[in-house]
Amino acid sequence: MARKKSLDEGPDLRVLILERASELFHERGYSATSIRDLADAVGISSSTMYHHFTNKQEVLHAIVSRFMTDFVDATVPVLRDESLSPGERVRHVVRLHLELSDDRRPELLVGNPIRYALDPAQQAEGIKLQTAYHDAFRDVLAEGVAAGEFRIDDVTVTTMAVLDMLNGVREWFAPAGRLTRDAIVAQYTALTQRLLGA
Amino acid sequence: MARKKSLDEGPDLRVLILERASELFHERGYSATSIRDLADAVGISSSTMYHHFTNKQEVLHAIVSRFMTDFVDATVPVLRDESLSPGERVRHVVRLHLELSDDRRPELLVGNPIRYALDPAQQAEGIKLQTAYHDAFRDVLAEGVAAGEFRIDDVTVTTMAVLDMLNGVREWFAPAGRLTRDAIVAQYTALTQRLLGA
Repeated sequence: MARKKSLDEGPDLRVLILERASELFHERGYSATSIRDLADAVGISSSTMYHHFTNKQEVLHAIVSRFMTDFVDATVPVLRDESLSPGERVRHVVRLHLELSDDRRPELLVGNPIRYALDPAQQAEGIKLQTAYHDAFRDVLAEGVAAGEFRIDDVTVTTMAVLDMLNGVREWFAPAGRLTRDAIVAQYTALTQRLLGA
Repeated sequence: MARKKSLDEGPDLRVLILERASELFHERGYSATSIRDLADAVGISSSTMYHHFTNKQEVLHAIVSRFMTDFVDATVPVLRDESLSPGERVRHVVRLHLELSDDRRPELLVGNPIRYALDPAQQAEGIKLQTAYHDAFRDVLAEGVAAGEFRIDDVTVTTMAVLDMLNGVREWFAPAGRLTRDAIVAQYTALTQRLLGA
């Protein structure tokens, strides 16, 4: 086991805990992983672990929260960037959505089937971040319609359809599969254009 | 509580158990529901319950298996019906997919986040049924391309995109929402046509 890390390795240690924890939850499942397993995997004592997180649910919440915050910080400014056309913003965000979902797969799969393990306040925070992304996406579609760039019957339904289609990829995409990630991004960019009537 | 039902009420009682169980798993969660809770909800003794299912995991497996079998039995013959054009088959199946997902929502939501509770053999059976649907869908897209009815770059990727888009609806569709179920079906039929270049 690595040397025990001291308490003052604050922010980096916290990120390290979250990354190892997301891998363990992903591999073994949330309920099969104890807070002691997490401490062992990082190479810290249980007491250092408890200095950072009171319980396992807090670790899960921090993983989901950190991923969603990073996702929103990466995508929403692009969706709201008025120096780009709506079509350019959507193309850029389709790539970001697929790449972030792939790069941070353990964190993302964790956040999904076991989101029920979070308490209502923790769930509400995740929903708020999802809503920020959804709303920015919907607004750029509405802008594209107003500008005559997109032909869309129902902006809200089409937003859900595009986001569900993009979210599906993480469930089946295999980096070693027939298509490279870039090829998948190109396909989904074209499919999104079709849904938007671009 | 209803009168205790006798063992000879076999097939109907089994279906009743599965329907009540899917509602309880859906409302309270799988881990929070005991086999005794299920027996109580149906109004049978625990021993009658154990006559039908050895444990809770078997109940879950039977729910998932029954739903998936019904889904495949309803959709695959339509997708393989050569008396209809590929476009007609897809339109019919988009409606079936969305309606079955809505009608049997408790069974479907059950099968998803907690599919990890199933053992590998049980999971393999579900995957086999999913694959039968996926393959029939992919084949009708390939037929449509060959007939010049669809313009599709990659039939496999487009199959996943359409199915992920359709599967997403059950997560957010609210029967009391702004759009009726028929309106959602009409929207998704049109969106699917776009993805297929129909």
